[in-house]
Amino acid sequence: MLSKSQISFIKSLHQKKYRKESGIFIIEGIKSITEFINSSYQLHSIYYTPTYFPSLPKHTANIKLFEVNNAELEKISTLQTPQGILALVHIPVKQKLDLKSLRNRFSLVLDDVQDPGNFGTIIRIADWFGIKNVICSENTVEAYNPKTVQSTMGSLCRINVIYTNLTTFLAETKLPIFGALLNGNNIYTTNWGKEGLILLGNEGHGISEALIEKITIPVTIPRIGKAESLNVAVSAAIFCSELSRGNK
Amino acid sequence: MLSKSQISFIKSLHQKKYRKESGIFIIEGIKSITEFINSSYQLHSIYYTPTYFPSLPKHTANIKLFEVNNAELEKISTLQTPQGILALVHIPVKQKLDLKSLRNRFSLVLDDVQDPGNFGTIIRIADWFGIKNVICSENTVEAYNPKTVQSTMGSLCRINVIYTNLTTFLAETKLPIFGALLNGNNIYTTNWGKEGLILLGNEGHGISEALIEKITIPVTIPRIGKAESLNVAVSAAIFCSELSRGNK
Repeated sequence: MLSKSQISFIKSLHQKKYRKESGIFIIEGIKSITEFINSSYQLHSIYYTPTYFPSLPKHTANIKLFEVNNAELEKISTLQTPQGILALVHIPVKQKLDLKSLRNRFSLVLDDVQDPGNFGTIIRIADWFGIKNVICSENTVEAYNPKTVQSTMGSLCRINVIYTNLTTFLAETKLPIFGALLNGNNIYTTNWGKEGLILLGNEGHGISEALIEKITIPVTIPRIGKAESLNVAVSAAIFCSELSRGNK
Repeated sequence: MLSKSQISFIKSLHQKKYRKESGIFIIEGIKSITEFINSSYQLHSIYYTPTYFPSLPKHTANIKLFEVNNAELEKISTLQTPQGILALVHIPVKQKLDLKSLRNRFSLVLDDVQDPGNFGTIIRIADWFGIKNVICSENTVEAYNPKTVQSTMGSLCRINVIYTNLTTFLAETKLPIFGALLNGNNIYTTNWGKEGLILLGNEGHGISEALIEKITIPVTIPRIGKAESLNVAVSAAIFCSELSRGNK
């Protein structure tokens, strides 16, 4: 049974302010929790309904475990339909961007993506296509937002998400910068080379003016029909697929 | 000013039951409304805050117009942040599937996609890539769900969304059936030919057993990293991109 103060602490973590203050975020579902336990992330505590106890990995020695009932889980969960188990995870120390680690590979760069669902989907796409780094502008939505975490489906624990000033970063890097624009080169005939950055913009405004200047190769997904634009996660998927295709 | 009964009627349309009963659904935002006015859909009425009156297309002769204030719009809107204008649209007569109309082109076939956001994104993707038909199992989420409509970003008015019994349909069709599976042929070396169906499954369970049997060409997006799966809208995007690429 949870105390009132435990419940109110966990509920506070639904909000960004308190996640920042405590350095802790929430993950839900046995699949995600197992993946985070087996990753470099440090778990703080796990709240399980009895059914899920046998599914927990064995090496949980440093993690506080609490059995809860469904009513308690509903109170602390961020989901409309809780998944029977929830954990608190320590937010890792903010990573510094190591420019050398970006050589000989492709990384995604997000300019102010705002929707947590889109952001989480992009992290999951990166994980599918073997992309290690997702570099974000400082105004990109928070990676530890419960909706982001949920949309990554566990992939968050395998991807480096790095927040940085993109204007400075894109001025410093010598990597080719492929920018997703509406009037660039045809994506299907783009020569990707062996390394680079894929720059994707905000849902409503696209890539900001100051960053458009830094693009070395503007790239477009040709439109055949009449939709005005593609969702940013959808664009990310098509870019990653093309890179993956080229690298075969 | 809206009457109580107007407000309660529009609010009832937030629910599937009342959309079905009245044959009316809600669209929001000036862009979508303009696109629907210029389409084959019939609008029932428009509710605009004064700022949006000048933006309305001229040919609204048969549509009832109501000026509303922000407080009224908030009451009738399905959005957390209403977009200044809302319209009611007649649900068109249920389309019958014309097998001949599927020849010499590619169509998407969805087996029980459940998330309205995913479904709307798929309709938007189809519209971008010039795919006319999205054929859905009877248990696929409703196309007139406000979240679906919103995610299509206006594309719903240009795409034929047809609900049918997929077991019967896939038994009758002579078109090649490309199924998105985890253990099929490499998508990047698939020979698409000039016509076919792209079959995509439910978010949690994939394509149902009964339909897997009907697949003539199983197709897989090769995984390089460790994510367990891709979101169904993301898969749809990569399939459409590959088709589009092949048809250049």
